[in-house]
Amino acid sequence: MTDILHAFASLPPVWKRSHLLDLESLSAEELTCILDYAEHFRTATDGCRKKIQVLTGHTLANLFFENSTRTRNSFSLAARRLGADTVEFSSSGSSTAKGETVIDTAKNIEAMNVSAVVIRHRTPGTPQLLASNLDCSVINAGDGPHEHPTQGLLDILTIRQRRPNLQGLTVALVGDIAHSRTARSNIWGLKKLGAHVIVCGPSTLVSKRWEQFGVEVAYSLDEILPRCDVLNLLRIQFERQYTRPFPSVREYALLYAMNRERMEKAKDDILIMAPGPINRGVEITPDVADGPHSVILEQVTNGIAVRMAVLWLTIMAGQVATSGAK
Amino acid sequence: MTDILHAFASLPPVWKRSHLLDLESLSAEELTCILDYAEHFRTATDGCRKKIQVLTGHTLANLFFENSTRTRNSFSLAARRLGADTVEFSSSGSSTAKGETVIDTAKNIEAMNVSAVVIRHRTPGTPQLLASNLDCSVINAGDGPHEHPTQGLLDILTIRQRRPNLQGLTVALVGDIAHSRTARSNIWGLKKLGAHVIVCGPSTLVSKRWEQFGVEVAYSLDEILPRCDVLNLLRIQFERQYTRPFPSVREYALLYAMNRERMEKAKDDILIMAPGPINRGVEITPDVADGPHSVILEQVTNGIAVRMAVLWLTIMAGQVATSGAK
Amino acid sequence: MTDILHAFASLPPVWKRSHLLDLESLSAEELTCILDYAEHFRTATDGCRKKIQVLTGHTLANLFFENSTRTRNSFSLAARRLGADTVEFSSSGSSTAKGETVIDTAKNIEAMNVSAVVIRHRTPGTPQLLASNLDCSVINAGDGPHEHPTQGLLDILTIRQRRPNLQGLTVALVGDIAHSRTARSNIWGLKKLGAHVIVCGPSTLVSKRWEQFGVEVAYSLDEILPRCDVLNLLRIQFERQYTRPFPSVREYALLYAMNRERMEKAKDDILIMAPGPINRGVEITPDVADGPHSVILEQVTNGIAVRMAVLWLTIMAGQVATSGAK
Repeated sequence: MTDILHAFASLPPVWKRSHLLDLESLSAEELTCILDYAEHFRTATDGCRKKIQVLTGHTLANLFFENSTRTRNSFSLAARRLGADTVEFSSSGSSTAKGETVIDTAKNIEAMNVSAVVIRHRTPGTPQLLASNLDCSVINAGDGPHEHPTQGLLDILTIRQRRPNLQGLTVALVGDIAHSRTARSNIWGLKKLGAHVIVCGPSTLVSKRWEQFGVEVAYSLDEILPRCDVLNLLRIQFERQYTRPFPSVREYALLYAMNRERMEKAKDDILIMAPGPINRGVEITPDVADGPHSVILEQVTNGIAVRMAVLWLTIMAGQVATSGAK
Repeated sequence: MTDILHAFASLPPVWKRSHLLDLESLSAEELTCILDYAEHFRTATDGCRKKIQVLTGHTLANLFFENSTRTRNSFSLAARRLGADTVEFSSSGSSTAKGETVIDTAKNIEAMNVSAVVIRHRTPGTPQLLASNLDCSVINAGDGPHEHPTQGLLDILTIRQRRPNLQGLTVALVGDIAHSRTARSNIWGLKKLGAHVIVCGPSTLVSKRWEQFGVEVAYSLDEILPRCDVLNLLRIQFERQYTRPFPSVREYALLYAMNRERMEKAKDDILIMAPGPINRGVEITPDVADGPHSVILEQVTNGIAVRMAVLWLTIMAGQVATSGAK
Repeated sequence: MTDILHAFASLPPVWKRSHLLDLESLSAEELTCILDYAEHFRTATDGCRKKIQVLTGHTLANLFFENSTRTRNSFSLAARRLGADTVEFSSSGSSTAKGETVIDTAKNIEAMNVSAVVIRHRTPGTPQLLASNLDCSVINAGDGPHEHPTQGLLDILTIRQRRPNLQGLTVALVGDIAHSRTARSNIWGLKKLGAHVIVCGPSTLVSKRWEQFGVEVAYSLDEILPRCDVLNLLRIQFERQYTRPFPSVREYALLYAMNRERMEKAKDDILIMAPGPINRGVEITPDVADGPHSVILEQVTNGIAVRMAVLWLTIMAGQVATSGAK
């Protein structure tokens, strides 16, 4: 425990970023740094249960232009477990409806002296836009189909806890890859740490172009299943209006749902993940979701650990940058 | 004050429950235990004003699938006066709209390491369902027309502060008994503590079947009024679509509103209660609502006291159960 | 710093009010007292960044019957930087929809033992109504077109930081004066502190009647511009359904927008203010909004400073009144 507290005495040399905008631009060392700090915080807070007052006096602003109870609350809880305050902004009832630009909204929030803005927006690149215009830390909580870096990090942390060496591990992302920021963040992060990544789903939702980034593209789950160490079952967003021809729910479940029969063809120690909320009976059957291979709820707890690490690292780096500039 | 703090050093032997799902299954001793602790907390916090840090580091999740500002805030304030954090989930914008089951939603929240989930849901039995599936404490904040135990407790606490012995006291619940979870929780709690309970209202809203539980059923307020020590005037939920023939607002007010004329026929020391929000001029006239017999605002303050007691007792019992199991 | 903390040891003799309902009824001394305390709090919290625990154990209730993310969060942050808790009530999902009166709603909130209620309501006079009926502090956060005193105070504080002596300063309020509570609060506050106030805008939105209060009325911005020390550019609320003939957006921008050309005709040290959210290209062009004369974001930070002062002064005065009455 003393060793862990020592970790919070100063920033690790590898970490210089005051924003977290994506995983694509991070080095393997930076990724590993966040994962290591997530473990430090998990330990120091007794499994994300207790408080550690390393961000007392800081305020985190949640600026969500798309609905999200889960990610928003995960960031809030992470902030409060570090002793920080939180303040919530959402698009309904906010000033953007009155014609304000997103930069002006964010600058106004920054002028309330917050240390970090967590932003979710349907337009890819919005977090980057804010980062260029704000002095406080900016953390991407999902920008359209582009990236959702803390989701990628929590998925990778959950894998790493069970398979400490990601080098050569085969991880399949199954489902709607085309519209999934979670898929993108997983792909960039896993590739950097040496995993072999397969994207698998109906051809309407999985693009061949991923091959140019060294990702394997597959359309049959049954074919790739025996080789997989980890399956990450992405949600089919049926509330989305798909414009291209798309399998029905029944067809999807028939071809891609993880169920008892498929589990028998899988490796004995396969890990079953899902970013949730899960559709029981669509991408996963209840016996698999609640079975011994499922680490779905572990992912939720790791979400808080990862967000504690990201908040602390980016806010600390921002302070160093500011005091250095003055 | 030292004596009171002593009360929080360990759980009282009578209390073993890590959930509060209803008042029907509680013993008189358990009911009395909660009421006593509500008084302890009221005293220790100087009338629910100050903080007492007995749940520091704990987090309470409010999971409301029906709108409620008042009950939700009362639980939040109770939690924060005990030093706990709170996190809010509501149905609008939550994941159940995306096809997630209520158990999965709750398990996800639990995986964020909350100590208690306060649940309001339109389906009777939902809190029981969660309690069977979660390790953290589950507190029922209203499950359809079934029960609303903390409302029953705060009503009974308010009576007990003015009439220390409930044995033989006559308490009438007036209004929409058929759809009222508040009525049910009051009936179970009051009966266990020895009160005589009358349910009174139009025959479309008051069922004869309550007689089999030892409850008196009446249709004329004027007839029972002279015998009553306490009147609890339930809200007529005009926003509800009543399917059975029902008196108009005017008819209801004529027959059941507590007004100046009826107060003259009542006992000199009658207590007037209402769970609120009140419809002035419908179930109660302004002179009675604001008069010396009204304890309506006392009920609100007692709501925080009762919820502090329930949170502390259930969370402490959960910790004992967990550490015992390990 | 020691001197500043000394300021919080007891109430200044000039301050006796437990409510802040408007600026119209305040004396120049009381206005100056709030502004001075806002500066004290700004300094004591290192520019509204750190916490100062002078309201620990107190709870602030935000009771907003109209949408507002910004003002609501500014009050919340101010309260939390003073160590107080906050609790949020809003009209959607609240009990007023169920037929409850606003006084009953507020009395219920007060019975949860809050120290102050911040109220926004479309009906002028609602804060006064609550103040007459509640024992806790009541703070007006906007009552229809009547007043928005903390907005007026933060505007005046921002001016005073750059122009310490308001006596004889010429301040123009430009835009929709007829519907603007911000305009009203600015007018009363600025006049009391000796400034010369001009209201300027299209004749459909600016009334001649202001002349009887010693305010100059103008319809051409270009005519008055060379004389102005400060311009406060009010938002044109295009989301409002204007019933009277009104210039189009293009016409308005042509006649009243502050742009580069107009800046050249202005004084060299003119201050450009806007209560926000701003419509870039309507009342202000981007180069002016982001230019060196703009103090728009300073206003936001000062909003927290002013609200810290108002909360502390009114709550302290309420405690003195209560302990004196007992």
